[in-house]
Amino acid sequence: MMKLYNFFRSGTSHRLRIALNLKGLSYEYVAVDLRTEEHLGDAFKALNPQGLVPALVEGDKVLTQSPAIIEWLEERYPGQPLLPSAPDERARVRAMAALVGCDIHPINNRRILEYLRKQLGCDEAAVQAWCATWIEAGFAALEQQLAADKTRGRFCFGDTPGLADVYLVPQVESAHRFKVDMTPYPTIVAIDGACAELDAFSRAAPAAQPDAK
Amino acid sequence: MMKLYNFFRSGTSHRLRIALNLKGLSYEYVAVDLRTEEHLGDAFKALNPQGLVPALVEGDKVLTQSPAIIEWLEERYPGQPLLPSAPDERARVRAMAALVGCDIHPINNRRILEYLRKQLGCDEAAVQAWCATWIEAGFAALEQQLAADKTRGRFCFGDTPGLADVYLVPQVESAHRFKVDMTPYPTIVAIDGACAELDAFSRAAPAAQPDAK
Repeated sequence: MMKLYNFFRSGTSHRLRIALNLKGLSYEYVAVDLRTEEHLGDAFKALNPQGLVPALVEGDKVLTQSPAIIEWLEERYPGQPLLPSAPDERARVRAMAALVGCDIHPINNRRILEYLRKQLGCDEAAVQAWCATWIEAGFAALEQQLAADKTRGRFCFGDTPGLADVYLVPQVESAHRFKVDMTPYPTIVAIDGACAELDAFSRAAPAAQPDAK
Repeated sequence: MMKLYNFFRSGTSHRLRIALNLKGLSYEYVAVDLRTEEHLGDAFKALNPQGLVPALVEGDKVLTQSPAIIEWLEERYPGQPLLPSAPDERARVRAMAALVGCDIHPINNRRILEYLRKQLGCDEAAVQAWCATWIEAGFAALEQQLAADKTRGRFCFGDTPGLADVYLVPQVESAHRFKVDMTPYPTIVAIDGACAELDAFSRAAPAAQPDAK
């Protein structure tokens, strides 16, 4: 069975849990506690020298970087695909995923916020304003794109949850944590709600994980 | 012919120029001047509501987000592949690309540095320290990974330039701009040098673009 080294509140870990669940793949949950900096310890760094969660281990293979792992899952386990089949549609879906995965998430993750606090002396209000800025910029663009798509069903693309939803839902979770007003993004809120009804998403939620205490 | 809306110094634009060149695809160069905030103007936002370069236009299709565009190029124009064929190897290469594309580049791009300067009052030394922190963290992990790969040839993976090199070379360019000491990363320096010898890379370099004045 695959082992997922992850942390309940990490957005990239959350992504991977959703992807694994959508594909119907079971995995062993291995918690890496970011609060005690377990990810920077020798044991985890022996697995992933970059010291970042998540890492997925299958046999003697260690996979890192959630975008690469998800594409690997899609290629190795093509059942319940996360991407449509036509290249143009795949590009659309991957662009939505990249908007979240490159333009929002990396700017608000733990090590960045620690730098803002410790090196730049930001207080919690400044940290929250920072996070809100990037989440709002990304969500505004995504909302516009989703609202303009007349062929869209209940999810980011069509009527089946896929790659873009895998990225979006953890980002909405993080937006709530940073108290972002979601009113300007009704389409995103509706998609997040549609996902929340599905077992693959509810089982992947941070609060449902064993290390969420 | 495809049109590439881009800016000479943008790392994600640079990436795309390399990918197009490696695939032997010609394109019309459309400069979007980030210095005068042309990317935030109505004309460009009509094309890409997110207001970010690059965008690739083919016929009536507008593609955004460089990771999605590069995967699209790989699927639509499979000649001169940027990725190996085995899923495990593809995951390795994509992980190196994501290390640069998610964990380094987005944190140092223009809008972030403007925020540091204008909202947080950082001076240029503080901005440079910020950039160096994330470049060095990423390069240290990548260097370790590359140096440990006994099957590696002259490039990030094997003896043919590919996806990871497409991401790495623009990031090295940016590291030079932010005066990062490259001494600790001899493998990265060697790979960057091997790439620089190739026409596909030298033609894509920022200084070789029409808007680099």
